[in-house]
Parts: sequence; structure tokens; C-alpha cells
Amino acid sequence: MSGEFSAIERIRRLLPDPPAGEVWIGDDAAVLRPPTGPLLLAADVVVEGVHFTAGADLADVGWKAMTANVSDIAAMGGRPLHAVMTIATPDVAGVDRLYEGVAEAVVAYRCALVGGDLSRASEVSVSVAVTGTVDGDLPPVLRSGARAGDAIFVTGALGAMAASGYALRPQARLAEGQAARRAGATAMIDVSDGLAADLGHILDSSGVGATLDALPVAAGATEEQARSGGEDYELVFTGPAELAERLPFAIRIGTCTSDPAVRPAGGGWEHSWP
Amino acid sequence: MSGEFSAIERIRRLLPDPPAGEVWIGDDAAVLRPPTGPLLLAADVVVEGVHFTAGADLADVGWKAMTANVSDIAAMGGRPLHAVMTIATPDVAGVDRLYEGVAEAVVAYRCALVGGDLSRASEVSVSVAVTGTVDGDLPPVLRSGARAGDAIFVTGALGAMAASGYALRPQARLAEGQAARRAGATAMIDVSDGLAADLGHILDSSGVGATLDALPVAAGATEEQARSGGEDYELVFTGPAELAERLPFAIRIGTCTSDPAVRPAGGGWEHSWP
Repeated sequence: MSGEFSAIERIRRLLPDPPAGEVWIGDDAAVLRPPTGPLLLAADVVVEGVHFTAGADLADVGWKAMTANVSDIAAMGGRPLHAVMTIATPDVAGVDRLYEGVAEAVVAYRCALVGGDLSRASEVSVSVAVTGTVDGDLPPVLRSGARAGDAIFVTGALGAMAASGYALRPQARLAEGQAARRAGATAMIDVSDGLAADLGHILDSSGVGATLDALPVAAGATEEQARSGGEDYELVFTGPAELAERLPFAIRIGTCTSDPAVRPAGGGWEHSWP
Repeated sequence: MSGEFSAIERIRRLLPDPPAGEVWIGDDAAVLRPPTGPLLLAADVVVEGVHFTAGADLADVGWKAMTANVSDIAAMGGRPLHAVMTIATPDVAGVDRLYEGVAEAVVAYRCALVGGDLSRASEVSVSVAVTGTVDGDLPPVLRSGARAGDAIFVTGALGAMAASGYALRPQARLAEGQAARRAGATAMIDVSDGLAADLGHILDSSGVGATLDALPVAAGATEEQARSGGEDYELVFTGPAELAERLPFAIRIGTCTSDPAVRPAGGGWEHSWP
């Protein structure tokens, strides 16, 4: 498929060169030095009409696709290493604009784009897979480690994306996730589907319940948007109450309970496939 | 998005459990032991209406998505380790059938599915990223190592998929790719876009030309289908003529020339984006 080869050549020029001994874009697979610590691997897709509107600036879409993935690495307390991206689109000419946002994210997150694929399609979808690792001896922070009595924190105010009609450029909280891991966070997840849903995954995996206090609501957002709106990419994590003293960004929003049936009041716990 | 969580739970049950110390499906990112050799990373997407017809059996689509990716690892002379998969679909109920084909591929290729994402969309697209490595001291086989005088080989007859209307289950040539690397192949690629296009990538990357003899044509296929049809996932590789003696599957189809302007006659060198 055409345009494919020239588009790949153009993204190659937007990106830094690989270090000696590595092969990035342009072969059947990238050849990479593996990390010395654990290898993290995640994938997320963003789809026209679901995660962005048909008229969206494709640079923002490229940024968002990278951010959604890097955020998954942040939620482990890790740092990203490499990404591969597949783009399905009716309009190959738009790919260059998309790559501009990707190239910005590559720099901002220090996450190399090392390969991918490009296909025709009737609507735009962008799928990214990302690798990462954690530095130091502490393991990645899973969803399953929350204990009764743990405090529940978020890294920032919620609902901004829902309030803005998803027009902003969200930021993956890499530094915050790494600091939370080093400080002893027991469980962590990123708020991609909304606080209620994502905290629910921690509670399900850890076998605990939760009571919530007031949520930090982003400027212009409603409390409902803070509770149920997605794609803010703030992190929610659990751990000893004292974490708040060591992590200046940590905003306490509640407490884990021993009874898993105790769930925060309010909506957002039900999902629907239209 | 719903159905999402239960679909993820169902695929989890279809798949083997991770070894101790690893985390697969169900957290923000999979936690894996990195390979001791080089880390290979590739991604491919298959899209409804482009790579399969709207009425296709989704189990075949799942198989094909895995095969296209594993084939990229085969083309490096490697073996696959882990895959992550994102599925965009209008019909979440079809995902279970798709996972059946994926689960077969996971077993056939010994490539664990360790994570992914699921989204609504108006058409089906399946994007897979795969990791792999190479065993032993020889490096992965790149596209760029062909030398003037090298013989050109394929691993099997070509054109079967084009002749069949893409109805078959193609097989990634893992054993053949690994054997070709051990025997001293100088360059290798998989035939995903058609022999003419894919051999062209080797010639471009290596700065050599090629003359072709007769191609091995799959039963029922035309010579044109053998030359330009894609998705057979046979491998084409270059190296000393003596490789044929050590590799029983190797079918010699031509010779690399020092003049990069010498290209095989016939179509398939032009690509078009409709």
C-alpha cells in the first residue's frame, strides 16, 4: 500500500536515530537492547468517533495515542522505552500531521517510536503498544496490592477532559507514578475510564472496599465529571496515609475498607456497549 | 466500555497462566522477564474490507492478525515471546470468536497473549504488537545485508492466498526463518505485500539489484498472483548459493546483482493508495 513507504520515511526523519546496535523503523521488526529490569508491555487503541471526533486535529490524536500508552507504564511506576504504532486511515495524507503529535510525545516522554504499520480503513484508528521498565529494586506497582486501611490518593484534579469535550492534550504522570512507587504505593492505576471505574479495578483486584471523601474537581468540571469522566490520565493509588507527606502532589480522596462490598456511592460503576 | 471487562476475563480463561513472577492480562501493563538476547518488537494491523471481508470468520481474523506479526519475527530469524492485541469492533459479541483463533495461534506459535485493549468502532480492526528474540550468537537477519552475487531463495510456493481469495489460514515460517539465520542468510523479509514489493525492500535496503528465474507458483495460482499476491507469509532471503544444500525448504528464485537499477521484470513494483 502506498504512501505507506514514503510516510514511513517521513516519520523516520522526524525522529531521533537509534543508538549503535539497535534497529528501529524500517525492518520487519525493531532490534532493541532489552532492559535489565522487568519488561513492561501494554497496548491501547484510540478510534475516531469514540476517543476523538472526526474533525479532530490529528496531531492531538497522535499525542493522545502515545499518552494513553505511556500512562499505562506510569501506572506501574515505570518509565517507557519503546513504542510501535499501527494507523488505519482513509486519508494517508493526514498521517504526517498525526506524526507531528507523535514526534512531540516521543520527546516529551522519552519513548522512542521504533516501528509500526499503516493500512487503509474507512475510519481512523491508532493503536500503540509500548514497552517500559522500572528502575531500582522495587517491583512494578500492580492493581492488586491495596490493603484495608490504606489511604487512597489521586495525583491531581479530575474531570478536566470530560469538561473540555476532550479537546486538551492530557499528560501522562510519569514522574508522579515513579515517585509513588518509590514511596511505597501498594496499588496504582491510571484514570482512563473514569475514577469510579478505575478505582473499581483496584478494589476488585485487591479484594477490598472503599469509602470516598470529596474529590478534587478540575476547574470548569462538575463533580459527576470528576467521578465518571475519563482520559484525564491522573493516577489513583493506595498506600499508608503518611505517603501524603512525602508526595507533594498526592491528594487524599478516601480509605480502603476490609469489606469489599463497601463501594463509593454514585454512578459510573456501570458500563455499556452501545 | 462494556463487555470489555467480561471479554477480557473470557480470553484470560482461554489462555495459559503466566509463569511465576510475571503478570499478563489484567493490569495496566504486563510484567515480563526480558530476553537475554536482543529484544525484537513489531506491529501489524488487519482491517475489515482491506485484509479480510466483512463476513469473514473472526477466528480466522484472529489467527491472521497473530500470524502477520509472528511472521515479522520469523523474518528476523527469531522466535516470538509475547503479544498484545487491540480490537476495535462494532460487535463485542464477535470478540469471543476472534479470541478462539488467537488462542490457537498462541499455542501454535508459542507466543503468549499478555494484554491489550478493546474499543467500539464502526468496522473491525485488529492490531497486534509482538516481542521476540533470537537464540544463539548470530544476530537477527536484517533487510540490508544482501550482497551482489548472493542467491535469492523463497521458503515455498507463492500466490496461494491471492488465488484462494485470502480464505486460508497462512502459517508463519518460524522454523524456516531460524534455520536460514543459522545457515548464514544475509538478508530476509516475509512476503506480506507480495514478492515483488517485499524483495524490493531487500534490494533497496541492501543497495543491490536482482534478476529472477521462474517463481514457484502455488497450486491454483497464476504467475502474476505468485509475483504480486500478498499474505502468503513465505520468507524470501538471500545468501550463498550453497545455502540450498543445507536448507531443504529453500527454493532458489534468482541472484543479486551489483547494479541496483537491475530489477526483475513484471508488475507489482507500483503501489497505490485508493
